[in-house]
Amino acid sequence: MAEAENNPMKGMISLFHEIAAKGDVAKLSAMMNHSESLIDEIGEKGWSALMYACRNGHFEVVQLLLEKGCDSSISNNSGQTALDIAKFWGHNHIVDLLLNASGGPEEFHNFFNRTFLNRLSEKRTDSEWLKAKETHSATVYILFSNLNPLVTSSQLGESTKRGICLCRVRHEEVEKFLVKMEATPIFLGTELQTSNIKSCTKSVSDSNMEIDDGLVAWFAINVDNAVAEHFHSKHPDCFFLQPLMPRLLELNTEEAGVVAQARSVLAWHSRYKFCPTCGSNTKVEEAGYKRTCLKEDCPSLQGIHNTCYPRVDPVVIMLVIHPDGDKCLLGRQKRYPPGLFSCLAGFIEPGETIEDAVRREVAEESGIRVGHVQYFSCQPWPMPSSLMIGCFAVAVSAEISVDEKEIEEAHWFTRFQVTAVLNKQDYSFLLPPSQAISHQLIKHWVRRNANL
Amino acid sequence: MAEAENNPMKGMISLFHEIAAKGDVAKLSAMMNHSESLIDEIGEKGWSALMYACRNGHFEVVQLLLEKGCDSSISNNSGQTALDIAKFWGHNHIVDLLLNASGGPEEFHNFFNRTFLNRLSEKRTDSEWLKAKETHSATVYILFSNLNPLVTSSQLGESTKRGICLCRVRHEEVEKFLVKMEATPIFLGTELQTSNIKSCTKSVSDSNMEIDDGLVAWFAINVDNAVAEHFHSKHPDCFFLQPLMPRLLELNTEEAGVVAQARSVLAWHSRYKFCPTCGSNTKVEEAGYKRTCLKEDCPSLQGIHNTCYPRVDPVVIMLVIHPDGDKCLLGRQKRYPPGLFSCLAGFIEPGETIEDAVRREVAEESGIRVGHVQYFSCQPWPMPSSLMIGCFAVAVSAEISVDEKEIEEAHWFTRFQVTAVLNKQDYSFLLPPSQAISHQLIKHWVRRNANL
Repeated sequence: MAEAENNPMKGMISLFHEIAAKGDVAKLSAMMNHSESLIDEIGEKGWSALMYACRNGHFEVVQLLLEKGCDSSISNNSGQTALDIAKFWGHNHIVDLLLNASGGPEEFHNFFNRTFLNRLSEKRTDSEWLKAKETHSATVYILFSNLNPLVTSSQLGESTKRGICLCRVRHEEVEKFLVKMEATPIFLGTELQTSNIKSCTKSVSDSNMEIDDGLVAWFAINVDNAVAEHFHSKHPDCFFLQPLMPRLLELNTEEAGVVAQARSVLAWHSRYKFCPTCGSNTKVEEAGYKRTCLKEDCPSLQGIHNTCYPRVDPVVIMLVIHPDGDKCLLGRQKRYPPGLFSCLAGFIEPGETIEDAVRREVAEESGIRVGHVQYFSCQPWPMPSSLMIGCFAVAVSAEISVDEKEIEEAHWFTRFQVTAVLNKQDYSFLLPPSQAISHQLIKHWVRRNANL
Repeated sequence: MAEAENNPMKGMISLFHEIAAKGDVAKLSAMMNHSESLIDEIGEKGWSALMYACRNGHFEVVQLLLEKGCDSSISNNSGQTALDIAKFWGHNHIVDLLLNASGGPEEFHNFFNRTFLNRLSEKRTDSEWLKAKETHSATVYILFSNLNPLVTSSQLGESTKRGICLCRVRHEEVEKFLVKMEATPIFLGTELQTSNIKSCTKSVSDSNMEIDDGLVAWFAINVDNAVAEHFHSKHPDCFFLQPLMPRLLELNTEEAGVVAQARSVLAWHSRYKFCPTCGSNTKVEEAGYKRTCLKEDCPSLQGIHNTCYPRVDPVVIMLVIHPDGDKCLLGRQKRYPPGLFSCLAGFIEPGETIEDAVRREVAEESGIRVGHVQYFSCQPWPMPSSLMIGCFAVAVSAEISVDEKEIEEAHWFTRFQVTAVLNKQDYSFLLPPSQAISHQLIKHWVRRNANL
């Protein structure tokens, strides 16, 4: 996933830390725009940019780093956090800033978690409003074919990073297909007024249009193969992402959140066309968030039933910590690329808690017994519609006994081993990419003096 | 739900605290067997039994209270926890005990969370083992009719509390119905060897049978009306619980966990008989945990699809804390009994995180904006198959604007108001019963100097 050659990156990190230490907000901002991943990079003695800014009392740099979502919980090799450093050097205004920031929304943001849309679910039953939005010239459609999104390469952005972005299509371009396919477009929401949307195509940047309530609506549709063919030939720079993975992870995080929502709902429609209660046909309602049975006396029409609504499958994914606190358990499934190890995971069963699902899955797959379970963060995973619930799990036994039906192998890895692979100093095994919550669980454990 | 007359209870609590302060382990144990709810009761100046035992250095009492699952995080009116008190009085062996206890499995246990069965999911595909267990004379069947469990009144237990317990039925009693109905019994698991199962009927207490692997298996079946009638006439003391609520909450917590599992899976079978992808009939596989389409070329047979597996619907339920930290937001739905207020709640949507679902639902229902969200604990809710994910949510706005389609009213309640209702000193409004996670969220907030 990354080149072995990492000296240029090391140079970048040193420069970034130097600028933070000097307090040059403009340069720091420019560097972060260029390379988002710099923000939490660790240099000599485990110091981060935030720590340098805290030591030298650069209030505005601290403010900028916090705004951009830096991780203020990281400890350096002496076990000090940025807050400890600011206190030590007596920069009280920065101490206050750090304390306020940690009182705010401090949850961890995974890939697929962010969005720039407000779902406005109350509008799903407002057919007049929906109709006006569906045909409005400012409205954005995103297209899928076989559940793969229509994207284009994003060399145009300010980043030099290779990437993809969603193609944003106007109503006039999809109008005749919508009529022909008799498809209900899925209403995704309207753009948040405060969002900083980076459009990488020009198709929606024309802002001289009159918009009734000022809200730009987004819809998703899954087109058939003929339509897909037509779009590709008309816009040769656009393509339906096939295979979906791993390139889907090249989207920017906000577009990824939109795809998480759209693809999960479209996948539900593709697999739940018939009423599971009686086998009859169904019709789509509520802007794509409901399917109702067409058979008049079907029991699914009496009361409210989950058969009519999209499915979300909760999954536990957990980093198991050795009883000694200094090793973690990673396993590999047969379908993984060679050398890749990751957290254990599994679906939550009916009548089961998150914590018990963690214990059951770990016991089944590795034979390890788990005591304390601690929630970390979650991540929607739209393949097709999972909610990954990330936890730390403290083992109370250490002897591994792998169930070979579930996983191929599992081992304890020391903090040192995992750190070396994360820092690209060792390639003896691979870890999942940073967009996967498993990577974030591992990174979080390594970086914190985790008190679990 | 409880009588207004609460003086006898107050007397009980004083006595309980006195015994804890004196260090009489035997009496304390007897009182707790009699009334489980005493354990965390608060008396004068906010002191708990654990605090009295800590002050006076009664190691064995502390040990017993911790074993029985007391809440060691409670603070008294001076803001001291039991740990603070033990430290203050220099009882270092008790300090160590408390510190060790808090390192262990400390998660909060809600009603429906506990079980005495090991799911042994690997046996679901072992048809030979299943067949042997299905017909074994030690095997326990629990029966449902229209998804209502077969129960009996439990005056026989050591508790004087009114309650119900599951009827445990033998294979010989269901054999002919199983054949006639061509039903696959749902395999629930085998009894945990360490569990302390309180059987309230005598039908399975005959332990002189030879059991192959020593494991007692449990199965669930949903019988038709004719069979239900037959059972009721044959065992007049047994009845199918109809209506299900609120009496289902009278089960002991471990049987409740078994019902949570069984009812969720049975409800799935009752509503998902047909393949949602093509509308064809399906067959039951994997001991009731899979339904496979019978149409040979159905796309659901290519690869793995969630259409074939039971559904678990994740729901967020949250106590919203006022920006001043001293009030919480409670609302009422139209269907609630008069006077009842509870936490807000709603289904997690596709592509949404737990934290964003909390923010969206609170904004939709009450107009309140939420910042920080903190996971508390979760609870399976088998009506039909939800997983309630309980969170605290810190409001960053205070002006309520209720969406009347969703809830009838919502207000800020002070800690003082909520405490008075919890302590049954005030009946101006009602809170949900202790078996609901909403009650536990509220109680937890009131009792802790919650640092959210």
